[in-house]
Amino acid sequence: MEKTHVAIVGMGTVGTGVARLLLDHGDRLARHAGRVLWLEKSLVRDLSKSRGIDDLPEGILTTDLSEILENPDIQVVAHLVGGIEPARTIMLQLLEAGKDVVTANKALLAQHGSELFDRARELGRTIAFEASVGGGIPIIANITQCFTANQILSLRGILNGTSNYILTQMSEKGAEYADALLNAQQLGYAEADPAMDVDGSDAAQKLAILAHLAFGVQVNWKEIYRRGLEAFTLEDIQYADKLDYRIRLIATAQLIDDNLELHVSPTLIRKGRPLAEVRGAYNAISVVGDAVGDMFFHGQGAGQMPTASAVVADMIDTAAGRTDITFRRLELWSDRQCEIELIPYPRTRGRYYMRFLVADEPGVLSEITGILGKHKISISSIIQHEPKEPTEPRKVPLIIMTHECEEIQASRAHLAIEQLASVDEKSYRLRVSEN
Amino acid sequence: MEKTHVAIVGMGTVGTGVARLLLDHGDRLARHAGRVLWLEKSLVRDLSKSRGIDDLPEGILTTDLSEILENPDIQVVAHLVGGIEPARTIMLQLLEAGKDVVTANKALLAQHGSELFDRARELGRTIAFEASVGGGIPIIANITQCFTANQILSLRGILNGTSNYILTQMSEKGAEYADALLNAQQLGYAEADPAMDVDGSDAAQKLAILAHLAFGVQVNWKEIYRRGLEAFTLEDIQYADKLDYRIRLIATAQLIDDNLELHVSPTLIRKGRPLAEVRGAYNAISVVGDAVGDMFFHGQGAGQMPTASAVVADMIDTAAGRTDITFRRLELWSDRQCEIELIPYPRTRGRYYMRFLVADEPGVLSEITGILGKHKISISSIIQHEPKEPTEPRKVPLIIMTHECEEIQASRAHLAIEQLASVDEKSYRLRVSEN
Repeated sequence: MEKTHVAIVGMGTVGTGVARLLLDHGDRLARHAGRVLWLEKSLVRDLSKSRGIDDLPEGILTTDLSEILENPDIQVVAHLVGGIEPARTIMLQLLEAGKDVVTANKALLAQHGSELFDRARELGRTIAFEASVGGGIPIIANITQCFTANQILSLRGILNGTSNYILTQMSEKGAEYADALLNAQQLGYAEADPAMDVDGSDAAQKLAILAHLAFGVQVNWKEIYRRGLEAFTLEDIQYADKLDYRIRLIATAQLIDDNLELHVSPTLIRKGRPLAEVRGAYNAISVVGDAVGDMFFHGQGAGQMPTASAVVADMIDTAAGRTDITFRRLELWSDRQCEIELIPYPRTRGRYYMRFLVADEPGVLSEITGILGKHKISISSIIQHEPKEPTEPRKVPLIIMTHECEEIQASRAHLAIEQLASVDEKSYRLRVSEN
Repeated sequence: MEKTHVAIVGMGTVGTGVARLLLDHGDRLARHAGRVLWLEKSLVRDLSKSRGIDDLPEGILTTDLSEILENPDIQVVAHLVGGIEPARTIMLQLLEAGKDVVTANKALLAQHGSELFDRARELGRTIAFEASVGGGIPIIANITQCFTANQILSLRGILNGTSNYILTQMSEKGAEYADALLNAQQLGYAEADPAMDVDGSDAAQKLAILAHLAFGVQVNWKEIYRRGLEAFTLEDIQYADKLDYRIRLIATAQLIDDNLELHVSPTLIRKGRPLAEVRGAYNAISVVGDAVGDMFFHGQGAGQMPTASAVVADMIDTAAGRTDITFRRLELWSDRQCEIELIPYPRTRGRYYMRFLVADEPGVLSEITGILGKHKISISSIIQHEPKEPTEPRKVPLIIMTHECEEIQASRAHLAIEQLASVDEKSYRLRVSEN
């Protein structure tokens, strides 16, 4: 059987998983690829570090990238370097050396996709990136191959496992945010610096990639409106629970009258709906297509072997020749004109949950509902609870669920309510979805 | 842009959906295929019948298959003829005429896959069949392309929308089986002759295809152990509900010690688990791979446009060249030796739900539990309810949930209990699963 020589750049957690699949399961990979995937070289920083692979053949590890770049036998390279630099430079060097690239680096694609894909096209090379979104969930292949008969109408997903793990711990164990985060770090879900996980940036990078694939829009992920777990507290999770909702960090891309709504928002999702029931570090994506209807995918969104599974599937597709066909057709990050425009965030529509701490005195509720009425927002339900601990002056939490309105209406009304003397300055507002 | 000329054989519900996608959305299909999919001919039985397509171009419809077979321009044909004959003969004729075929006919593949795939290989042609299992859920592409780095460990699915619709109606509306079936027929879910839907045959045909793809086993669907909705009554659904389970018709293919358990069984699934929460005419499939972990897919398992979505995606893959690569690698229904053997059904293991109608007199429970003990079956829980209507002699329902045992133990114990004088001859036994 013919061989395709491959290499791995970056032997961190995922790179080690890829090496294990290539070395331990060569037979089954060869059966699917129609050729042997022969691991020729793996670039590491430190040759002496233990890799947890018993049978790593002699001479595979190297600290010198040129041993991969200058080896003409090596055709496919798994690029598993995180961050922007030197990841960007390395990918360009690999493409220029004639290698087809498979990557898991969503930050790099979300930021420099246009440059990298243009360069790959110029050089007649390919970039495959299933592992960059959704870990083991093959959402990229499904959008770019399986749903090609459809106009995608919406994509809504839980794309960051760390924040979903934290949310689950808070809602099921009553854990405070800081404790749940520490727990996620101890379990290896969250990075040492988890800022990108919990502030919605990681989900926004993945959403930028999915929105480009599904709708053709090229958007810089930094321009996607996003909020993270700082936008609410354990109390909001508990109120949501009483109202029959769960809070999830939802990345949304949906067509509304031929324009695109795009944001990452902590959202109250009605219990029992698939996205509300996603627990722990799992990812899930709900896709609606105009022919296929609604589809739902659920699986492990991160972790060594699920991510390695996606990387190796891409390596097989590349070796077998499928990637080349898909890559050329997709015109990814190309100059192709896109007719879909982004809806400015203030013009997106939705229902809202608002929580205020208000003085327990006559006339306050009337003032607040008056402001909502003035901004033409109707109230769907309202709850006023006894305070957990008596405060002085006496204040009580007030929860309002609105009917659908524009974000700008909700934000203006919210601001006006916050400025009332009888309302505490600390208040919360979240999107609400029945689905 | 280049054209790939295509044809449709069989303009029933799905065929009409395919024609609508090809005619109404040519631009987006061309973008994905890299070439225009040009609908040249559609074979119908009756030229005068209305198709519900406004802009069907003149001259497309024909009642003469030879207009497709003998037109050398036509390269790809959507074969949407149900049943075995003449569907089999037509597919062979298409392959021999040099056409690549896309089909939705699972019965044909489950029964004659070996002959058809051999013939396609000999002729250098391809057969694509995403629409044959799971309707709009792209389970075949996911198994054959996205999870290629994995050994699949198990596949469990709700593969028949009609029976799931009936089950949902019975459990949520308290509908009797006959009424729910009539309802399914009125909504167009169930065939005029729904026997294959409700007796597990349709699910067994789909399972035979999935098991072949995932495990390499070639099994005649008629040899797959299967039971359908006749195996229980509304009462069992209600008892399951009280025990915190739902009954679903589950198609199972799972590796146990390197051998394969394969059956279609009505199963009590713990509420809250994804398969238990699948409602109405939806399909769902849970896949476990040794690298990717557990994945769950949920979507519309039948219906005009979801099925047409899968057919057209296959037509695009065939026109673009991906199908050719996948088809050659898969060695489908080939002579490749498979080392996995089927576990004889009596040797499969599981937990069981048993329901008996027993005489309300001293000593009966002791007799029954004695028989279970003799067959080395431990009891997990036991419920004896008051009868709904008094009977003479007075009989009461007895529900037993067992711990795990072999099917043969459960079936022998069940038979022995049924033969007790104090037990009514009508009794029920179902598999139980926590997942």
